[in-house]
Amino acid sequence: MLESIFYAKSIAVVGASEDPSKLGNTLLRNIIEAGFEGEIYPINPKAEKILGLKAYKSVMDIEEDIDLAVVVIPSKIVPSVMEDVGKKGIKGAIVISGGFKEIGEDELEKNVVEVARKYNTRVLGPNCQGINYTYNKMCASWPVIKSKGPLAIISQSGTIGASFEMWAEEEGIGISSFVSLGNKCDVDETDLIEFFANDDNTKAISLYIEGFREGKRFMEVARKTTEKKPIIVLKPGKTEKGRKAIETHTKSIVGEDEVYDTAFKQVGVKRVEDLTQLYDFSKAFALLKKPPGKNLVIVTSSGGSAILATDLADRLGLNVVEITEEAKHRLRGILPAHCIVSNPIDLTGDANASMYEETLEILKNEENIDIFLVIFGDPIENACEVIKRLKDKTGKEIVVCYLGGGDVEKEESLKMHKEGIPVFPTPERAIHVINGLVS
Amino acid sequence: MLESIFYAKSIAVVGASEDPSKLGNTLLRNIIEAGFEGEIYPINPKAEKILGLKAYKSVMDIEEDIDLAVVVIPSKIVPSVMEDVGKKGIKGAIVISGGFKEIGEDELEKNVVEVARKYNTRVLGPNCQGINYTYNKMCASWPVIKSKGPLAIISQSGTIGASFEMWAEEEGIGISSFVSLGNKCDVDETDLIEFFANDDNTKAISLYIEGFREGKRFMEVARKTTEKKPIIVLKPGKTEKGRKAIETHTKSIVGEDEVYDTAFKQVGVKRVEDLTQLYDFSKAFALLKKPPGKNLVIVTSSGGSAILATDLADRLGLNVVEITEEAKHRLRGILPAHCIVSNPIDLTGDANASMYEETLEILKNEENIDIFLVIFGDPIENACEVIKRLKDKTGKEIVVCYLGGGDVEKEESLKMHKEGIPVFPTPERAIHVINGLVS
Repeated sequence: MLESIFYAKSIAVVGASEDPSKLGNTLLRNIIEAGFEGEIYPINPKAEKILGLKAYKSVMDIEEDIDLAVVVIPSKIVPSVMEDVGKKGIKGAIVISGGFKEIGEDELEKNVVEVARKYNTRVLGPNCQGINYTYNKMCASWPVIKSKGPLAIISQSGTIGASFEMWAEEEGIGISSFVSLGNKCDVDETDLIEFFANDDNTKAISLYIEGFREGKRFMEVARKTTEKKPIIVLKPGKTEKGRKAIETHTKSIVGEDEVYDTAFKQVGVKRVEDLTQLYDFSKAFALLKKPPGKNLVIVTSSGGSAILATDLADRLGLNVVEITEEAKHRLRGILPAHCIVSNPIDLTGDANASMYEETLEILKNEENIDIFLVIFGDPIENACEVIKRLKDKTGKEIVVCYLGGGDVEKEESLKMHKEGIPVFPTPERAIHVINGLVS
Repeated sequence: MLESIFYAKSIAVVGASEDPSKLGNTLLRNIIEAGFEGEIYPINPKAEKILGLKAYKSVMDIEEDIDLAVVVIPSKIVPSVMEDVGKKGIKGAIVISGGFKEIGEDELEKNVVEVARKYNTRVLGPNCQGINYTYNKMCASWPVIKSKGPLAIISQSGTIGASFEMWAEEEGIGISSFVSLGNKCDVDETDLIEFFANDDNTKAISLYIEGFREGKRFMEVARKTTEKKPIIVLKPGKTEKGRKAIETHTKSIVGEDEVYDTAFKQVGVKRVEDLTQLYDFSKAFALLKKPPGKNLVIVTSSGGSAILATDLADRLGLNVVEITEEAKHRLRGILPAHCIVSNPIDLTGDANASMYEETLEILKNEENIDIFLVIFGDPIENACEVIKRLKDKTGKEIVVCYLGGGDVEKEESLKMHKEGIPVFPTPERAIHVINGLVS
């Protein structure tokens, strides 16, 4: 079970170092900096204290129970350290160290697995960037990201996971977890999906993956998981050269791309086109439900932005639906004459929060609307409050696009993200997300 | 001639106001805040002083010559004010006020044009967001953007122009100008392209446009302009509903989309897919030259990011070219054994600036390379210095993707933009730009 890793109450950092240029320093420092509340044991045969904590020569020298070992030592000595880890009864190990299968050292990696099996230790890695689980304040990884939120990212690329975390922190969304897969000698994507399926802190599971370890098991677990929460996947290898690059990177054979497309569809996994979409879709899928249909209403202060949205929506098969005559009539009663009261509804450049509010109040229960795209195209204050009240009053899904708003935009977008309202910086990114939600 | 507008040495703000909720206040305030160095004359019949400046009842009351009138008063009185503007000999007017053709007041707009013609006054607008020309410190528009740079954006949407300016400022690229087209009663996109074609401060002309005023003249001017500098256009209206939204927004009939596609190609105008690309392509086209071929080399610290780049590059028809055996041999001599020395060249997660530098030093004169994509996938310090030195030493074009680097990424990206090196936040955005450059 992976609980002993994610909910570790005590961590040994094997290879902890006082030298800031060493990864063993980064990891210990990050675990401390992220505010881990359990015991932390630096392991280093040559040190008394590291970063102010008492150091130990071996995990065997520690009297208390340990839940998790973070291993960052030269690859050659990993198997013997895993012996100690096993004997000490530690149930989870994250092997950060590289120098295994990825450089042809298959035997060494096999040794690690054998030792781990003997003692029932679960191993993440080797050659990985660790785990960050914000709800346990446990950043056995880098960078240090502390913002709690609904997104879990499992990634075969450290950089892609790290970018994802940073965007989520910067936007005020936050993450539940980042897990770097590394060589997947033991714990793989499917184990992790299984864990996050049952993790209440996680509302959407995002996956960057180059190749699957066990296709059939992935399909089974994914099928069960997507009944409970969404899985969004970015899987490269659409082209010959892409597949060749994957094979060089992960030493795994990648099949024809169509197979993956079909498989993902079968088990309800949402496949995205690029890294931007991996993040955007994850955000929307974590925060919104699937709308009952494709009828979209756009309310905007920017005519141009709404045209860009409408054009793409129509191209993707969304229905920029005509609003009812009754709603039009009511809108004409409250809006200035220069506003456009057919969909997209254009409040024009002098719109303010209360014009949005009155407009949305009229539209909130219209039966022919499945989803709202609200575009704020100017520095409109209190945008968040308006959308929050609409959200509380309507059963419909709301996607926001905010652009051209400078500091007000930044502030309102942060507030909306904290309220669970997804905001996108361009009309087209918002429409792609809406299309992903309904299709 | 538009010079009297862009290089105005004195500005009258007709409708200037002390009330911060009025646009006449925003405009005067922004002109002052942006540091305009000429004379500024607030015009308001009811005020003695506005924002600390002596106010006048009419432009006729000012003794000195005036180059530009910014008009922000109720639409009904614009024609009579334009009479004064003409009589005073002011050669350019920006009419911010709405309430003309866009709400069916065609006659009123015609009156404005007639008066302007009588006095040879050039008019931008009405119903527009003004002009920002940073090299004259003249922000007769909003928001206040002061960062000087190579991009000029002409936009039929105020929001899209404003977003573009804000992104350029935030990224440290800067703009030469933003011009909001409004109703185009006189000055239109083609006049402006003609001006920017001859403006040495502008290296790329970006255009968001819903409909052209004079197709044939646009074609002629665009053809001549693209021989000197790039024009990048975002033109919606690909779908029926998109065209209908345009017609409601700008009251102009829009033809079939294929016609535009063909026309743009004929005159060398680069058409982009969405708002993100409008900005990305503009940045790249302003800073880089067209490479002689499609041979791309990718140097990365992030295997995953390079795979995403390779996959898209191959799909778009770029050539992720094999590097020569000699170069491979030399790379093996300097790089750690775990690095991958075939394209994409993966320096892996422990790469630092000097590994990039040594690698790029070997590749810089390879004959089979037309363009570099350098991906920094970690917080790599001094990335800018490495790329700047490469740029100085090689004749080849260099595009950078920087992600997963947190504060170091922000700092290095800003530095690179100041050095004229374009940086993109995802591998796919970088590849789309490269494809735009070579095709």
